[in-house]
Amino acid sequence: MNVELVSIGNELLLGYTIDTNAAFFAREAAALGIRVVRRATVGDGAEEIAAAVKEGLERTGAVITSGGLGPTSDDLTKPSIAELFGRGMFLDASVLTSLQARWKARGWPGELPVANHNQAMIPEGSEIIQNAHGSAPGIWLTDAKGRWCAMLPGVPREFRGMAREQLLPRIVAHQGPEGAGLVVRSRTLRTTGIAESALADAIGDLAKELSDVGVAYLPGWEGVDLRITVYDEPGDVAQVRIDRAEAALRQKVGKWMYGTEDDDLATLVLMALRAKGMRIGVAESCTGGMLGMRLTAISGSSDVVDGGIIAYHDAVKVRELRVKEETLVAHGAVSEETAREMATGLRAHFGVDVAVSITGIAGPGGGTPEKPVGTFCLAVDVRGTVRSLRTSAVGDRHEVRQRSAQAALNLVRRALTE
Amino acid sequence: MNVELVSIGNELLLGYTIDTNAAFFAREAAALGIRVVRRATVGDGAEEIAAAVKEGLERTGAVITSGGLGPTSDDLTKPSIAELFGRGMFLDASVLTSLQARWKARGWPGELPVANHNQAMIPEGSEIIQNAHGSAPGIWLTDAKGRWCAMLPGVPREFRGMAREQLLPRIVAHQGPEGAGLVVRSRTLRTTGIAESALADAIGDLAKELSDVGVAYLPGWEGVDLRITVYDEPGDVAQVRIDRAEAALRQKVGKWMYGTEDDDLATLVLMALRAKGMRIGVAESCTGGMLGMRLTAISGSSDVVDGGIIAYHDAVKVRELRVKEETLVAHGAVSEETAREMATGLRAHFGVDVAVSITGIAGPGGGTPEKPVGTFCLAVDVRGTVRSLRTSAVGDRHEVRQRSAQAALNLVRRALTE
Repeated sequence: MNVELVSIGNELLLGYTIDTNAAFFAREAAALGIRVVRRATVGDGAEEIAAAVKEGLERTGAVITSGGLGPTSDDLTKPSIAELFGRGMFLDASVLTSLQARWKARGWPGELPVANHNQAMIPEGSEIIQNAHGSAPGIWLTDAKGRWCAMLPGVPREFRGMAREQLLPRIVAHQGPEGAGLVVRSRTLRTTGIAESALADAIGDLAKELSDVGVAYLPGWEGVDLRITVYDEPGDVAQVRIDRAEAALRQKVGKWMYGTEDDDLATLVLMALRAKGMRIGVAESCTGGMLGMRLTAISGSSDVVDGGIIAYHDAVKVRELRVKEETLVAHGAVSEETAREMATGLRAHFGVDVAVSITGIAGPGGGTPEKPVGTFCLAVDVRGTVRSLRTSAVGDRHEVRQRSAQAALNLVRRALTE
Repeated sequence: MNVELVSIGNELLLGYTIDTNAAFFAREAAALGIRVVRRATVGDGAEEIAAAVKEGLERTGAVITSGGLGPTSDDLTKPSIAELFGRGMFLDASVLTSLQARWKARGWPGELPVANHNQAMIPEGSEIIQNAHGSAPGIWLTDAKGRWCAMLPGVPREFRGMAREQLLPRIVAHQGPEGAGLVVRSRTLRTTGIAESALADAIGDLAKELSDVGVAYLPGWEGVDLRITVYDEPGDVAQVRIDRAEAALRQKVGKWMYGTEDDDLATLVLMALRAKGMRIGVAESCTGGMLGMRLTAISGSSDVVDGGIIAYHDAVKVRELRVKEETLVAHGAVSEETAREMATGLRAHFGVDVAVSITGIAGPGGGTPEKPVGTFCLAVDVRGTVRSLRTSAVGDRHEVRQRSAQAALNLVRRALTE
C-alpha cells in the first residue's frame, strides 16, 4: 500500500519551520505496512496545493495533506482540493456547532468569530475525520475511481493524534484484504560506550549471516543504535526474523547494549536505583547541570534523586566537594583523581548511596596536547566503592557535554548492574 | 528566481532522519532572492530520483538535490540524473587523486577502497562543486535549454558548507542580471515573559500601519518571536521597510524584547554580568540543573559562573541553602518565599554577587488546585536586593522546565539592566 504526503505552508517552504509530521507519519505507517513513497512540500497557494495533490493521486491514488486547515484566508487546502475533486463547499452545521461549543468551553470571550466559520466549510461528499486535539476537523475525500485524499491540520499535536487514532486505521480499512498484511518492521538495539567501527568489528561476520534483515548503524550522542529492519513481509515472518537477528546481535554486542527502541539511559538508571533502594546525587563540572537535568527529566525521579553540586569553578570543587588542592595541582581539574574526589566528596556531603561526577574539557578552548578538547573523566561512588574512567568525545561543546553526561549515566548503570 | 529541492534517501522517506538541509537551504536562498517553490523527498531508487528531478526541471528549470552521492551501491543520484540529461559517466582522474590524498591524509589504513572510486565517477559535461567538508564532490549539470541540476551530498555539515560557499554564489551568477536583486528579507525580534495574545494587544493597531511588511507571531518555549518579512523587493527597499517596522514595534513591545535574530538569553545574561564584574550561582529545584546547563553552554562562561546547588529534595534546600523549615511548612516548597530563601542562601553560601533560584511543579504529577502543574516561582538576589516572581507555564514537563529556566534568565537580565 503506497501513499504520498503533501505538507502545506509557506513557513515550511521558507525553512522557518521544520516538518516533523511527515517523518512521524512515515514511521507509524510503515509499521502497518503502509509505505510513504514520495513527500512534497508546497506553499499556501491554491494552485500549488492542487497540483501537488493531483500528481500524487495520479501516481498512487492515495494522498495525505497536512496544514492549511486554519481559519484564515491563507488556509486554502479544503477549497483547492475540493475543486480538484469537482466538489463544492458547504457549511456543515454539526461542525459549526462543535466549534462554537469548544469556544464556549474554553471560556473565550464572546461568540465564535465569523472568521472561524471557515473551519466548518466542508467539501461536498466528504467525510469528517474527528479532531480530539484541536478545532479544525480533518477531511476524507474519495473520487469515483476509489482514489482518496485525507486532509489533516499541520499543528504537530493535532496531526499526530489524528493520524494515529483516526487516519491510519481508516487507511488500513480502506485498502481491503488484498495487498494488506505485508509490513515494514524494525527494532532498535541501543549501545553506548563503543565506537561505530569497533561495534562493526565486534559484529564481524554475523552481518552476512543476517542477510534476511537489514542492519543499520545509527551513531548519535547517546551512542550507536543498531536498527534491524525487515521490509514487505507478512507480520509473523518479519517478527521471527527480527527476533532471531536480535538474539544473534545480543550475543556479540550485549555488553554495550543498555536498551531497545526509545529506552532512555537516565530512566534505566532511576529504575536500577529504585530496585536497590538507593538515592543518588551528582557533582558536575563541565556539564554544568546537564546530568542533573537528565535524571530529573523523568517524572517521579524525586524518590531517588537528592540533587547535587554544580562545581564549575575549581573553588567550588574544593569548598563543597572537599577536592584536595594538591590533587588539582598534581593532576589537574580534568583527571580521574579529581573526578574520584568529587564523587566521594558529594556522597559524603549529601549522605546519598550513589554519587556520580563529571569533569572535562568541553571546548572549544582549554585543550592541551595531553588533554585535548573532548577529554573527560568520570567517577561513581556506590557506598564507598569507586569506579572511574577517562575517555574522550568528538563533536562541538554541546555534543561533548551530551556525550559526557551519557557516559556518566552508563557508568552508574554498569556499577549498579554488573 | 525559483528553484526546487529534491531530498534523496530511504531514511528520510521512512522518517528515521529528519530533513534539516531543505529548511536551511530555503532560508539562505531567500536572503539572496532565490525562492524555493517546491520540495520533494524520494527514496534511493534511480527511477524515483529521475522522475522527481524531471518534474522539477519542467516546472522551474532549476533543481538542487541532496543525498545519494556516497560510495555504496545505494547511491544512485549521479547516474540516474546523468541518464535524464542524456550523459554518460566517466572516472574523473583529478577527483580520484584528491579522494586518494584525503584517504592518506586521514591516516586511514591501506589504499582507498575500490568501492569509493564510485565517488570519482562524474557525468560527462558536468562541473565539479568543490567539497571542503567531506569526500564526495558536488555536481553541476546544465542542459541545452539552460536548465540545471546541482547535486550535493546529504550529510548536513557538507550540504550546508557547500550550499553557502559554492552553490548559492553559483546560482546567483547563473541567473544573470534580469530577475536578480529582488530579495526576501526578514528580521526577528525576540520577546519573553508575555503571552502571544497580550503581545498582539500591545501591538494593537500598529499591525495595520505596518502593511508593507509581514509580521508573524512565533511562540515557543523561549518566548514569542516577532518575525518581520519583506518579499520580493530590491534589497535597499526591503531594508528600509524592515528598519521602520522594527523601530515602530520596539516602541510598543520593547520592554519584553531581550534580543533579535538568534540571540540567546543566557549569552546576554553572561555579557551583562561580565560588564558589571559580577559572578553568578544557581539554586535549582524543579529544573534539576537545566539553568546551570544553559549558563555553562556558552564557551567562556567560567569567568562569571561559579556553579550552584541542585536542591531537588527539600532536605537539600534546608541543608545547603538554609531554607527555613517553617517557610517550607507555611508556604510550601513552591512559593516565592522559598525561592527567595534559596537565592539568598545560595548567594551567602557561594559568596557570589548574583544568585538565581527556581522552584516549581513541572508535572505531570504534583499539582493542586492552588498550585496547578506549571506553577513556578523564581527569585534573584543581586548583592542583597531580592526580586521574586510567581507565574506559570503551559506544556509538558520538559517544556515547563525550559520555560522556567528561560524566565529565570529573564529575571536576572531585568535585575541587571533595569
